[in-house]
Amino acid sequence: MIYLDNAATTRPNEQAVLRASEAVSSIWYNPSALYEGGGLARKTIDSAREKLLLFAADSSAFELIFTSCGTEADNQAIFGAAKRGNFVTTAGEHAAVYACAQELKNRGVEVRYAPLRSDGSVDCEALLNLVDGNTSLVSVIHVNNETGAINPVAELAARIKQINPRTVFHSDGVQAFGKIPVRLTKHIDLYSVSAHKIGGLKGVGALIKRRSLSLSPYLYGGGQEGGKRSGTENVLGILAFSYSADSAFHALEENAKRVSFLREKLWNSLDKNIFFRLSSVSGTPYILSVSASGLKGEVLQRMLSDKGVYVGTGSACSSKRPHSRVMEACGHKKELLEGVLRLSFSAETTEEEIVEAARIINNVASRLQGRLK
Amino acid sequence: MIYLDNAATTRPNEQAVLRASEAVSSIWYNPSALYEGGGLARKTIDSAREKLLLFAADSSAFELIFTSCGTEADNQAIFGAAKRGNFVTTAGEHAAVYACAQELKNRGVEVRYAPLRSDGSVDCEALLNLVDGNTSLVSVIHVNNETGAINPVAELAARIKQINPRTVFHSDGVQAFGKIPVRLTKHIDLYSVSAHKIGGLKGVGALIKRRSLSLSPYLYGGGQEGGKRSGTENVLGILAFSYSADSAFHALEENAKRVSFLREKLWNSLDKNIFFRLSSVSGTPYILSVSASGLKGEVLQRMLSDKGVYVGTGSACSSKRPHSRVMEACGHKKELLEGVLRLSFSAETTEEEIVEAARIINNVASRLQGRLK
Repeated sequence: MIYLDNAATTRPNEQAVLRASEAVSSIWYNPSALYEGGGLARKTIDSAREKLLLFAADSSAFELIFTSCGTEADNQAIFGAAKRGNFVTTAGEHAAVYACAQELKNRGVEVRYAPLRSDGSVDCEALLNLVDGNTSLVSVIHVNNETGAINPVAELAARIKQINPRTVFHSDGVQAFGKIPVRLTKHIDLYSVSAHKIGGLKGVGALIKRRSLSLSPYLYGGGQEGGKRSGTENVLGILAFSYSADSAFHALEENAKRVSFLREKLWNSLDKNIFFRLSSVSGTPYILSVSASGLKGEVLQRMLSDKGVYVGTGSACSSKRPHSRVMEACGHKKELLEGVLRLSFSAETTEEEIVEAARIINNVASRLQGRLK
Repeated sequence: MIYLDNAATTRPNEQAVLRASEAVSSIWYNPSALYEGGGLARKTIDSAREKLLLFAADSSAFELIFTSCGTEADNQAIFGAAKRGNFVTTAGEHAAVYACAQELKNRGVEVRYAPLRSDGSVDCEALLNLVDGNTSLVSVIHVNNETGAINPVAELAARIKQINPRTVFHSDGVQAFGKIPVRLTKHIDLYSVSAHKIGGLKGVGALIKRRSLSLSPYLYGGGQEGGKRSGTENVLGILAFSYSADSAFHALEENAKRVSFLREKLWNSLDKNIFFRLSSVSGTPYILSVSASGLKGEVLQRMLSDKGVYVGTGSACSSKRPHSRVMEACGHKKELLEGVLRLSFSAETTEEEIVEAARIINNVASRLQGRLK
């Protein structure tokens, strides 16, 4: 089986999960408990927290709040920071931000969407034009989960603060953290990350928050996470996240370079009579979106699955729509919208897999094209 | 080490975690993905969902929404159902409900607290007197997590619906599910449960919901859990929950009987010149709260920890208060409030541990008493 849907989820890093399981087999206590075992669990979580934070930010200015997923981190950021005025975001957000924006509209907050360019990156000038004195929050996805386009979040945040210093800036960094260099600047207030996109377990994410920003909790209860996120901590998931991040960050540049080579190799091997490239070369190395004009992505996906190649057709999270709202916002024509395949890689993807996948994808697509003719 | 803090968390059921890990090693795909691996993950989650639901309710009338913890289930229930009018709850709720009630007050919802009886159960008549035509939600903890008192939730729910049929009834069942018989009746609308209190992993809970009740999501995003809780599903945690529940429910009655015997054996072995019993015999077998009058529970807890006995002093989740708000609501005097020890059991607790723990607890408490004299 060749797995090219790593933007949906990655295979858990076996070593990371094993190490975490071993640790938890002796420190399974409640981290809030005051006896020795509880204290050990607490310290272990706090070391994981510090380590994960340092991969992306300066710990004197930022803190990291563990959540149950990237979606929860996005919900906490958005509902916590966009309580009034207007909320500015992009037409290229993941469902975890987009659905919050729709709900904010129901609650009477004005939502403004900045348009995308054809590669899925936001039109920066158009976005900046939407920001004004009443903008409580701006949220811009760091790496677009469908096209892989990278948005210049640090630059955007700096320019937004010039327009309105009180505007909070959030970025969904789920497809960036552990894959491309991430360093939070002084203008970024909130940043969401997720474990299972980089070899961790499903059920853990985090919200990185500027310490000076006051943000309401989203889950109320026993006051865990310094009162910022209640609920007994997912110790196993947190440790597996920190160990898998170790691997990801340890070889971040080499991995990105090698995966970039694989992405181009795959693109170069695809039949240009069938496939059109949607992802730009400047995007994340980990995502190559293409479209087989005139074909249906879902049908291709099923045929490929039968041949042992797993690919995406857009975000798995929005798999119930006929075609992707984000691809539509990129301005692609209807023929292209229906034939989207998202091919996404991990550090484990091999050149042999890429060569074999290209052969199968070309073969399946040309058979489907022939059948339709 | 003798572990008597099972109401805070239990040691994960090794077999359950192993089985779940093995399953996930081949179905680690995103359950929203449309290819075969994704479908398998989806089906596995849905079987776990059905099985867990059937342990507590009729699946034609109820559905089960996986959450990241009992706290999230409580937050979703309360913020989803108590948007206006008044919210009636008890003075004996877990922090996950109590902190939501405090936040509701900030949002302009009137909160009414029913008083407790000395064993920690709610004064039912007083609670019913608080319910009126404007009561949007009533939340009553099923098994009090500090004293172990069992509230008659089915009877209360039925009488509440007679007063106001539109009132939603929620119960936090975290200390009940898998420990005492639970069967949701037609008057109960929402019920929260948690995995890690019955041998599952931290990071998973569920909200059982009457199908006919419409409830807003609490996490917005990709529309997982039938649109009722977004965020990629914690497949490992969900499976470990279902396997650990298998064990718990398989031997629920025998376990409860044996643990009840252990609870009484422990109480009978404690020095009555030092300890006062706070938990009633009619409470859950799994919790025995006592107080060493004139001594400090936290000091005792630390001394016991040094001797290898782990006990609680009240809810770990509210460990930052000087003494328990719930114990105070039971009407106990200040001397008793400070000396509380919560001794809580699991199906794994042995008679030898109970005998040894009683010896150590008596010894430590009498040494501390002597030192203070």
